[in-house]
Amino acid sequence: MNDHSSALLTDHYELTMLQGALHSGAAARRSVFEMFARRLPEGRRYGVVGGTGRFLELLERFRFRTEELDFLSDRGVVDERTLEWLSEYRFSGDVWGYGEGEAYFPGSPILAVEGTFAEAVLLETLALSVYNHDSAIASAASRMSVAAGGRPMIEMGSRRTQEHSAVAAARAAYIGGFATTSNLEAGRAYDVPTSGTAAHAFTLLHDSERHAFEAQIGSLGPGTTLLVDTYDVERAVSTAVELAGPELGAVRIDSGDLGRTAARVRRQLDSLGATGTRIVVTGDLDEHSIQALAVAPVDGYGVGTSLVTGSGAPTVSLVYKLVARARGTGPEEPLEPVAKRSVGKPSRGGRKWASRRLDDHGTAVAEEVFPYDPGTAVGTRPLLRKLVSDGEIVGHESVHEARERHRATVDELPEQALRMSRGETALPTVFH
Amino acid sequence: MNDHSSALLTDHYELTMLQGALHSGAAARRSVFEMFARRLPEGRRYGVVGGTGRFLELLERFRFRTEELDFLSDRGVVDERTLEWLSEYRFSGDVWGYGEGEAYFPGSPILAVEGTFAEAVLLETLALSVYNHDSAIASAASRMSVAAGGRPMIEMGSRRTQEHSAVAAARAAYIGGFATTSNLEAGRAYDVPTSGTAAHAFTLLHDSERHAFEAQIGSLGPGTTLLVDTYDVERAVSTAVELAGPELGAVRIDSGDLGRTAARVRRQLDSLGATGTRIVVTGDLDEHSIQALAVAPVDGYGVGTSLVTGSGAPTVSLVYKLVARARGTGPEEPLEPVAKRSVGKPSRGGRKWASRRLDDHGTAVAEEVFPYDPGTAVGTRPLLRKLVSDGEIVGHESVHEARERHRATVDELPEQALRMSRGETALPTVFH
Repeated sequence: MNDHSSALLTDHYELTMLQGALHSGAAARRSVFEMFARRLPEGRRYGVVGGTGRFLELLERFRFRTEELDFLSDRGVVDERTLEWLSEYRFSGDVWGYGEGEAYFPGSPILAVEGTFAEAVLLETLALSVYNHDSAIASAASRMSVAAGGRPMIEMGSRRTQEHSAVAAARAAYIGGFATTSNLEAGRAYDVPTSGTAAHAFTLLHDSERHAFEAQIGSLGPGTTLLVDTYDVERAVSTAVELAGPELGAVRIDSGDLGRTAARVRRQLDSLGATGTRIVVTGDLDEHSIQALAVAPVDGYGVGTSLVTGSGAPTVSLVYKLVARARGTGPEEPLEPVAKRSVGKPSRGGRKWASRRLDDHGTAVAEEVFPYDPGTAVGTRPLLRKLVSDGEIVGHESVHEARERHRATVDELPEQALRMSRGETALPTVFH
Repeated sequence: MNDHSSALLTDHYELTMLQGALHSGAAARRSVFEMFARRLPEGRRYGVVGGTGRFLELLERFRFRTEELDFLSDRGVVDERTLEWLSEYRFSGDVWGYGEGEAYFPGSPILAVEGTFAEAVLLETLALSVYNHDSAIASAASRMSVAAGGRPMIEMGSRRTQEHSAVAAARAAYIGGFATTSNLEAGRAYDVPTSGTAAHAFTLLHDSERHAFEAQIGSLGPGTTLLVDTYDVERAVSTAVELAGPELGAVRIDSGDLGRTAARVRRQLDSLGATGTRIVVTGDLDEHSIQALAVAPVDGYGVGTSLVTGSGAPTVSLVYKLVARARGTGPEEPLEPVAKRSVGKPSRGGRKWASRRLDDHGTAVAEEVFPYDPGTAVGTRPLLRKLVSDGEIVGHESVHEARERHRATVDELPEQALRMSRGETALPTVFH
């Protein structure tokens, strides 16, 4: 979708605010917006930043072309002067952000956008849509990866989320530690490895399970994964090994008591000499059931619904707030902190920097947030990367780099961060 | 996005099943797949079908062009023969479905796809992605509309869901009874009315709340909606009426105890002569808090997070199952029912038809499902519409038609269906 404008993936009021600010003259005031979470989803010990790479892609396509301007004009969304301004819109400011895959905590300034009010306010809705979704999925994926303890996981939730969310979810899950996805568009668009073999329909289509297995092995080879729970699992496993031999790649179990069935199937496979045949389990898994299967002879997990719905937290409630702005409109005017006083929704004014404090063993002990750039100091790791410089995107990276960053950041977290039980935030956020 | 192929918005295994079925020869067997829910989300009394119109749009663009085939070939997803078959793919079968906006119940056959196995299986993932998402949102929207009892609602959840889900959610919410959306792309793509004025950032940008209000009124006119809770609500309301006069369109309250604040603001507005100024409340509303505000002087609601996350049910667990197939490959071969025997996931084999039974007062009393076409009978309303005929899409309609259907179907439901408390399914599903 690389030639489409992303400019209307936004809220009506961003444009009417622009119109009002052009009217008052404040549109040109230098401003800083920050994205952060006031809290983590209930019981979560850490969050994972997802969406950085997608946001940068969409920012590149945030352009008001004739089609977009005609719509805004026909509907009377904004006035002529605003339409003219929009027709020349290019974000020309700077953006800093946490690296994608990085852990975050309440108050972590995971994105900072600096530019004129006009150019920065327009990005609010899009930035939040991308980060709130992708971070929810990356956070859930990370917990599941920890629960799986190294056993590979397949993301297969496309059918349980909107078709484009499915692509973003597959990407975020990969960053959060999943090995592959069922989603082909995620393979094409983001180079996420894809996998899959057959569903129950394939067995039901044929005159018998034997016919179905013969067709699948004949077409995909004995290394394929056969789904063995359409009728009777024991008979299916026996037929599978008879037809594919001990080179059978894997069997998949999608129903029943997965742990007990896996144990029975393992014994049967071993007794048939198929000791190298793997067992993959699927069917309403989440981090808790994955962890419960740790003692079962399971070689891989397929996870769908719980992953793509953020395992109980389909959004992570990130907000994008004006934290500072100049009073005058010159590029050198000093920034002044601003914050509203709404009941129950405090904000901290002023641009922020962040680093993670590590102890002598390299274990994270605190999230530190500063109202100035603290530079690099021994025992701290700066968390903000430059993503956009004078309007030029400089923060592109592959999902593989983000996945590697995620792995490193999780390794650095204290042990209690990785427990599946509900708990407190694993690191305190210290505001300097 | 109308020129993009939707063909890779699907699961890897749909294509490997196709390859296996081409290998065995069963790919050409006439087949029927049905989409249904085994149950409603916990405590829900009815579901609402969403996604029909979007599915038909995406079906029109389900084409394997050179770009898609190259990806499948490079990654070795399927073999040469399958790639050739895909290059000529056009769905040539028939599709029936519940009208969009219609209520549904467990077992309701909300979509039936008939064609060869090959052409029908390929649509599984895409159909489920669209319907599972859009029906979740339409169902939540419908409950909120009932709770709001005629007061207009604004959908404003774009920032709390993926950017393309946001568009689909705005569309589904409109069908489910919302009056407008904040999402501009939903306005352009689906003709959903859009609305919005300003956020807290607009007030913070200016040197004072007074300056901000002056700019907004000067630019958008006195009929605008002013956000009054950035600092002190009472002072803001006083400033708002002073500047806009009694023609002030509305004030918006986004924090605190919305009911009490609305009552206080109503008295203040009335005392200032602004008796026609409306009060709009926003901020973490769901159907329960909307209902609780029934006694407050509130003129409209803005709903975000709870709506776009399906109010606790972000997916409605629809499945797409092979229910019948022929043994031979001719177009006239008789269909035979099929069903798997997996533990805890029973399916009913065979193509189904459905109608809603009404009592003498026109109130719905049962969902009736037949293994044959029962025709039209007094006291029943057939529920399936022809959506695709011999590959040609015949079921296009506007969101306005779907919205009207939804209104009519809700009016027909028994009173207990419309309660907000958790309950049983409002209508029994009777399988004939």
